[in-house]
Amino acid sequence: MTQTSITRSWVASANGHADFPLQNLPLGVFSVKGGAPRSGVAIGDHIFDLGAALDAGLFDDGAARTAVEATRGGQLNAFFELGREARVALRERLIELFKEGSTLHGKIEAQGAKLLPLAADCQMHLPAKINDYTDFYVGIEHAQNVGKLFRPDNPLLPNYKYVPIGYHGRASTIRPSGTDVRRPKGQTLPAGQTEPTFGPCTRLDYELELGIWIGPGNAMGDSIAIGDAADHIAGFCLLNDWSARDIQAWEYQPLGPFLSKSFITSISPWVVTAEALEPFRRAQPARPEGDPQPLPYLFDKRDQAAGAFDIELEVLLLTESMREQNLPAHRLTLSNTQHMYWTVAQMVAHHSVNGCQLQAGDLFGSGTLSGPESGQFGSLLEITEGGKKPIELASGEVRKFLEDGDEIILRGRCSREGFASIGFGECRGKVLPAR
Amino acid sequence: MTQTSITRSWVASANGHADFPLQNLPLGVFSVKGGAPRSGVAIGDHIFDLGAALDAGLFDDGAARTAVEATRGGQLNAFFELGREARVALRERLIELFKEGSTLHGKIEAQGAKLLPLAADCQMHLPAKINDYTDFYVGIEHAQNVGKLFRPDNPLLPNYKYVPIGYHGRASTIRPSGTDVRRPKGQTLPAGQTEPTFGPCTRLDYELELGIWIGPGNAMGDSIAIGDAADHIAGFCLLNDWSARDIQAWEYQPLGPFLSKSFITSISPWVVTAEALEPFRRAQPARPEGDPQPLPYLFDKRDQAAGAFDIELEVLLLTESMREQNLPAHRLTLSNTQHMYWTVAQMVAHHSVNGCQLQAGDLFGSGTLSGPESGQFGSLLEITEGGKKPIELASGEVRKFLEDGDEIILRGRCSREGFASIGFGECRGKVLPAR
Repeated sequence: MTQTSITRSWVASANGHADFPLQNLPLGVFSVKGGAPRSGVAIGDHIFDLGAALDAGLFDDGAARTAVEATRGGQLNAFFELGREARVALRERLIELFKEGSTLHGKIEAQGAKLLPLAADCQMHLPAKINDYTDFYVGIEHAQNVGKLFRPDNPLLPNYKYVPIGYHGRASTIRPSGTDVRRPKGQTLPAGQTEPTFGPCTRLDYELELGIWIGPGNAMGDSIAIGDAADHIAGFCLLNDWSARDIQAWEYQPLGPFLSKSFITSISPWVVTAEALEPFRRAQPARPEGDPQPLPYLFDKRDQAAGAFDIELEVLLLTESMREQNLPAHRLTLSNTQHMYWTVAQMVAHHSVNGCQLQAGDLFGSGTLSGPESGQFGSLLEITEGGKKPIELASGEVRKFLEDGDEIILRGRCSREGFASIGFGECRGKVLPAR
Repeated sequence: MTQTSITRSWVASANGHADFPLQNLPLGVFSVKGGAPRSGVAIGDHIFDLGAALDAGLFDDGAARTAVEATRGGQLNAFFELGREARVALRERLIELFKEGSTLHGKIEAQGAKLLPLAADCQMHLPAKINDYTDFYVGIEHAQNVGKLFRPDNPLLPNYKYVPIGYHGRASTIRPSGTDVRRPKGQTLPAGQTEPTFGPCTRLDYELELGIWIGPGNAMGDSIAIGDAADHIAGFCLLNDWSARDIQAWEYQPLGPFLSKSFITSISPWVVTAEALEPFRRAQPARPEGDPQPLPYLFDKRDQAAGAFDIELEVLLLTESMREQNLPAHRLTLSNTQHMYWTVAQMVAHHSVNGCQLQAGDLFGSGTLSGPESGQFGSLLEITEGGKKPIELASGEVRKFLEDGDEIILRGRCSREGFASIGFGECRGKVLPAR
């Protein structure tokens, strides 16, 4: 069902909703007042409880029913594993249920299915058990901005335009939006010293990323061809790859970032499906003259023609003082997923080309998605040039890096003439002082 | 129960067994002829089926019974989570059951408990669901040998003697001993070229490591103090960190190894407990003059006095031609865990100091454990100096790196005057041609 053929919903708050109109229908896992986590779909200001709807007999046909059954148990892994067909069947059934004039409107309410208010008592959880988390580095503007700090004449390493660079991240500390961020402690090397000291991080940063949910995946020893990669992408979220820059600078040679990233990674809890994002696909931006063509295992015509996304990404900062003064949040970043040098399909094909097993519920991060201009940088490292150029806030405060009490809010939004806008919901996290 | 107070077993094959005498009693997960995986203990040439023994009423007292119940379901995670007390109670009960003259000998056989032959129909599985896998780099001789290939004058990076360097590894492709190793494909940069090619790895290597099983772990935001770290170490295994050197060289800047390691990691399937290894603890070797003292969060007197292990580690190579000619395996490496610059407790304390959550069933690799001398190098990269000095085999073959059909066998063994020797069992893997 194309987005243009979908009109309005009888759920009044869905029509014109900034994030969750009828055209989005993201899945998530929630609980109410300490109850067991269960799956739901966001529509307007409400969550539609999928388990209750199944029990109420609203999913009687084959594929949609199978899909909903796979969302049982407070984790979407089995649903991700079913792949595209089940996801589409569920989407079509949900639209049938919720579109304006649906003959099922009465049935939903009569049979005890639940539309719960999103904000009130619902707590959001991670949507899936994350087996492995991989963080990529496909934001070329970020790679260039960071590279310039170390190598002004030659910011990109020689492999960048051939290899979708990535590394394994820590799965155990991925948390849903709203989880506080405890300032980490660790070893750092003070400027001009040769011996490290130990203490709380003093250069705490955010990184604006797109998150990608994987499913169904491949067996060890097999690979996913780039032409098939779309079948293994279950959905998308926003991801904040919180980073301790001072710990990172001292620890990362020769094996990469470790404790500087593993204290927490925040994600927005709603899984926005590939189907909902379909109208916002774009051609992968042409490679600048002189850039190499992707190697054959990373090249697919369809992927080049429609494998990128036009998703506007925003980062806001709210300090304690700003909250006290009722000041609006300060926009740190306005960027877009079009700054990805590699598509999500290229990331999947690359990750599995050596036979590495991908599994339903694996999570990818895109890497920081900065734009080339001031105002588009996806981390404070870039915005303040490593702390050299503090930013001034309306509260009269300045920031080089994040202070205790600071809250970072990520938002993502897709707009296109003739289509309903959809959003990702927020990914928030507030910094707490070190223990 | 100290090892010296344990004598002989009525299980005849256990007495003098190279790996599994009564003094070892490692836990593992096995299945018979495609049946469901279940937990067992290795004793001599047999596996003692823990579930069957529980059903037969052999674990009626509190702590040992709780321990065995936690091994149900084909994964030892819940058992790891119980910690040291439950592990010790189970060990004591097992010794009571299996020691020579045990009054329970008859009871075991009468009540239907099972001692299965290890070799015959038993297939070994991963002992636990591995949530996160971290590979360290604490083998200082390896770090120096590899560093010399790139920086002859200054092989160790400045952080090495302060930071127990580690990085996140891929959990989804960890497999038990006996799983074949499919040669990976990937991008490599041919010598003298500026553009990469794609194809099967031509510099396939092994890495000899100690594996460490974690349990119970810590909540996100908490840390494990070095003095408490021993309570979070459930057991040990052997680990082969298979490495594609050509892929690694091209991909690893700036975020570390990725596809060069994630195609497979092999481990020995038996979990050798901290209690079994107790007699083989040693003082951490004194740091050479001029080396810095560990920072306070990494320093503990008891750990310095007895936190190291004396485990002899061996690597054998068996080629297809050697198998055909019935030649004995060629020893590539004879090394020891005493070449670890950091103790396992230091690894645990460091990993969690930033608040990173460790969980029961997490696996650590030590990093390659080479010695300083020829014959002690834990990888072909070091032995052949990156392929420059091929080794000659009794079969008339030479090797720079691994060829298809080559099998690598890791062994680990602890010996000490006045104590029974114990071993880890094997960690084997045979190279298959690329797909």
